[in-house]
Amino acid sequence: MIVDLPRRLVAEALGTAMLVAAVVGSGIMADRLTDDVALSLLGNTLPTGAILVVLITILGPISGAHFNPAVTLVFGLRREIGWHAALCYVAAQLLGGLAGTFVAHAMFGLPLVELSTTVRSGAGQWIAELVASFGLVFTILAGLRFRGDAIPWLVGLYITAAYWFTASTSFANPAVAVARAFSNTFAGIRPHDVPAFIVAELAGTLLALALAGWLLADPQSNPAPRPAE
Amino acid sequence: MIVDLPRRLVAEALGTAMLVAAVVGSGIMADRLTDDVALSLLGNTLPTGAILVVLITILGPISGAHFNPAVTLVFGLRREIGWHAALCYVAAQLLGGLAGTFVAHAMFGLPLVELSTTVRSGAGQWIAELVASFGLVFTILAGLRFRGDAIPWLVGLYITAAYWFTASTSFANPAVAVARAFSNTFAGIRPHDVPAFIVAELAGTLLALALAGWLLADPQSNPAPRPAE
Amino acid sequence: MIVDLPRRLVAEALGTAMLVAAVVGSGIMADRLTDDVALSLLGNTLPTGAILVVLITILGPISGAHFNPAVTLVFGLRREIGWHAALCYVAAQLLGGLAGTFVAHAMFGLPLVELSTTVRSGAGQWIAELVASFGLVFTILAGLRFRGDAIPWLVGLYITAAYWFTASTSFANPAVAVARAFSNTFAGIRPHDVPAFIVAELAGTLLALALAGWLLADPQSNPAPRPAE
Amino acid sequence: MIVDLPRRLVAEALGTAMLVAAVVGSGIMADRLTDDVALSLLGNTLPTGAILVVLITILGPISGAHFNPAVTLVFGLRREIGWHAALCYVAAQLLGGLAGTFVAHAMFGLPLVELSTTVRSGAGQWIAELVASFGLVFTILAGLRFRGDAIPWLVGLYITAAYWFTASTSFANPAVAVARAFSNTFAGIRPHDVPAFIVAELAGTLLALALAGWLLADPQSNPAPRPAE
Repeated sequence: MIVDLPRRLVAEALGTAMLVAAVVGSGIMADRLTDDVALSLLGNTLPTGAILVVLITILGPISGAHFNPAVTLVFGLRREIGWHAALCYVAAQLLGGLAGTFVAHAMFGLPLVELSTTVRSGAGQWIAELVASFGLVFTILAGLRFRGDAIPWLVGLYITAAYWFTASTSFANPAVAVARAFSNTFAGIRPHDVPAFIVAELAGTLLALALAGWLLADPQSNPAPRPAE
Repeated sequence: MIVDLPRRLVAEALGTAMLVAAVVGSGIMADRLTDDVALSLLGNTLPTGAILVVLITILGPISGAHFNPAVTLVFGLRREIGWHAALCYVAAQLLGGLAGTFVAHAMFGLPLVELSTTVRSGAGQWIAELVASFGLVFTILAGLRFRGDAIPWLVGLYITAAYWFTASTSFANPAVAVARAFSNTFAGIRPHDVPAFIVAELAGTLLALALAGWLLADPQSNPAPRPAE
Repeated sequence: MIVDLPRRLVAEALGTAMLVAAVVGSGIMADRLTDDVALSLLGNTLPTGAILVVLITILGPISGAHFNPAVTLVFGLRREIGWHAALCYVAAQLLGGLAGTFVAHAMFGLPLVELSTTVRSGAGQWIAELVASFGLVFTILAGLRFRGDAIPWLVGLYITAAYWFTASTSFANPAVAVARAFSNTFAGIRPHDVPAFIVAELAGTLLALALAGWLLADPQSNPAPRPAE
Repeated sequence: MIVDLPRRLVAEALGTAMLVAAVVGSGIMADRLTDDVALSLLGNTLPTGAILVVLITILGPISGAHFNPAVTLVFGLRREIGWHAALCYVAAQLLGGLAGTFVAHAMFGLPLVELSTTVRSGAGQWIAELVASFGLVFTILAGLRFRGDAIPWLVGLYITAAYWFTASTSFANPAVAVARAFSNTFAGIRPHDVPAFIVAELAGTLLALALAGWLLADPQSNPAPRPAE
């Protein structure tokens, strides 16, 4: 459906808020309930993957369900969203993300704003964010190309996997990285470490966009009529 | 299909009973098998999410698969169910929920009725129930608007996430809250704490209804014919 | 597709063998890797639910994917399978189940045949098997009535839940119960306890069949033309 | 869509690389976070199953998403891919798999190349690989026969199960086995043990191909017109 910009922005803010509330909140819950860090990560992974499937399904028809400045950048570069709207999207994602952190803290009785002290830095972490974002954006672009209806599941499952196979647990989202800097809990990241994460995420994003431009292009070497795919 | 009220009520009672049996029973099982509370919560989460997908799929065509007075209230306010039927639904949900507790206790060799001593109170818990119910009802309304066939999965996945990211583990259902008050096990809640939970749940429900009324409305600013969505 | 009986029987035997190999094998694996019994049950649950989705999807079009004498009994009583074929089905399920136990033991370096010493007895266990089988058969019948294409997921998710919320971990299948009696591992059951399990399973099966006959029947009180469901 | 061979090969290499990165990377992550080996296996299983659903969905339309020489062999024997392309596929899978190991090591700060010292040998392991590959290939062939659109889920769920019920944790893929030989981490396998794994995998593959040729064949004993399946 064609929706006016204010409602699209509310959808972006709401979706990013619920995503961050799920990431931060489940991290707090898991961390409080166990001393086993693998179990905490599992208790952080399942809710994140599950809520992504839900949020993309229910808000995608309104705003496209980006919830992520890197994704908005991709659609801006593909001219599927104008730059004015794109900037508004990013602002809505950042505000929504912060609101998500606040809500999670309110539920768990923590100060609404904290600064994280969790160090996430070094070459391994940056490579991990590049890989995580590359995979996320490529999954979205290839999913849109071949199975648009499956995007919610593809993204939820991709992030479920990437939590575990990337050394950074796959932030892969500048707005979420900023929001997590304000939570000194399991999912936090030291503010000082956020800029490098964002650079790595954008690098992975552009790499995926470039590869997709070639790999997913319509075949042109075969001008003859071809059967339906 | 169009079904007579008695069968709809049996479907509501049966579904709520199986939902509560799953919540209470898996809590007992998990709690008995491990000392790690995060693992217990995981053993409580997976069965709840899984059975919700099943129950909504198989009973939805009969009764709508509310299993939840807050959901019935929403459909009452939207005039999709009459108030007489709605009251009968709520009664069936309450009775079914109690039956679910009894069945779980019978299977695990406990007294059929207990009163829980688990304190679940305080601002954080109430905010959590408000958030949990807001998210559940908004998920249902937006799901019905855009992807009705996906409702069973959306609800199952939403609750899977909300078990972890809300501080209350997301009761989000007055009938289930009442039923859980009669089980002094992992999933229990002190009877004294139930009323505030219900108030928070209804507040979240009305908030979601209000937001959905605006965010999901058909666009009206564009009277020209528009392409199919 | 319409398939000759020998191939249907091979499909039943193969499916039951893979199901039992998954149940018994994952129980052995999980039990060897951890001392936490909840974690063992989780490592037993996920493979069982997952393989059920797979096996019902790929073998359902050949044999109907019963893999369970209780299910075959239901279709016999509904006259959807003849009694001669039904008896052959049950024999194939029993033989396949035993083969599954042998294969699991061979993979894990155990004697091919053992007798289990795990006591599973008492009222709670029997109620649990009745509930488990009632839920399984009702899920199948209602699923066939409303969403036949979803049956593999419904059964896989139902069993995933029932492993945790029934005190018996939901055998719900006489052929699987017999096969598990020959494995003195995590998933085993003392042969002496099998007959009572089977009686409880058949009782739950008949209860589900009776309820479904009423609850899922076409509405007849409304002879006027009604809109498509 | 009909795609030129170079892009198909890039898709095979990319998919195998991401698959191996997920297998090896999640193994490292899980192993570092916990001392409980069952929990490590769970942290290894979920990402592998999830990423398989994603990769097969998004790359299947380009290359068929084999990511596995045993699968390419099957399609070669069925004459659905020419032998020249098949050999190129296998080379792409091997190179992609190695790249996946390198990427995982880079993210986790390990030397890019190691030789595994994990012994995986003996009759039980070989039977397990035969069973695992038999099940995987039969699942693919029967899935293609009856529910081609479900293949990504079928493979992801099958491998999720097979990680637990086969004693070898189900490599079931010669290219992945080679790639894992170069990682001395949780998912590793001693190079010396790889050849026997590959032999067992190919034996299981051929067994599945033979069974499928009979079990999944169109019925011929009934020449009369039959209703649509």
